[in-house]
Amino acid sequence: MKQDQINFADKFAKFNEQWSPRVIAEMNDYQFKLVKIQGEFTWHDHKDTDEVFIVIEGEMGIEFRDRVIHLKAGEMCVVSKGEEHKPFAEQECKVMIVEPKGVVNTGEAGGELTAKNDVYI
Amino acid sequence: MKQDQINFADKFAKFNEQWSPRVIAEMNDYQFKLVKIQGEFTWHDHKDTDEVFIVIEGEMGIEFRDRVIHLKAGEMCVVSKGEEHKPFAEQECKVMIVEPKGVVNTGEAGGELTAKNDVYI
Repeated sequence: MKQDQINFADKFAKFNEQWSPRVIAEMNDYQFKLVKIQGEFTWHDHKDTDEVFIVIEGEMGIEFRDRVIHLKAGEMCVVSKGEEHKPFAEQECKVMIVEPKGVVNTGEAGGELTAKNDVYI
Repeated sequence: MKQDQINFADKFAKFNEQWSPRVIAEMNDYQFKLVKIQGEFTWHDHKDTDEVFIVIEGEMGIEFRDRVIHLKAGEMCVVSKGEEHKPFAEQECKVMIVEPKGVVNTGEAGGELTAKNDVYI
């Protein structure tokens, strides 16, 4: 259901599960997803698309094969198509992800952190 | 030039002109743009694409032909393809827009608020 005003805090209050993105909006064939992360994710890439991380609250990092970057609230990063990355966060961090509909969170790496797609809140 | 960490406050400090979007990141063929708005924009639509508004600081509104919505920091809205809209803000408001590369800010309406595209900061 399309909503006019989407409030990030209200949406984050609707779920607690970590590493499990919820879709809050769609723009053309792209989705805006909220996710709570803590700990280390799986090394993976997305062969067909870039992926955007926007930190809404807290701090996170993204490990690449050649560097590590740190992001805090009010910052974003574009992970390039095909670039291996591993998100992590010491404390729980609230993040918005923007990417095309259908992207699997773990890429082709799979594993227990692979989340169901298209979970709308 | 691709940057790993993009800080919204740092980017907003780089320009003062209102209604003049600056590109801060690209994801596939989409752009993330920052814009400072104040006053009333032009009625317009975008025939070929949805458009996302994310409020970073301050408050803004969007007038549609059948309703008015209000957005504040931490909120977003998707304006549907082809839907006429008129953004406005009483005080200066800092906004991030997400849309495909090449979208003209005033649609086909034109006028003096039409901004140059692809101004990167």
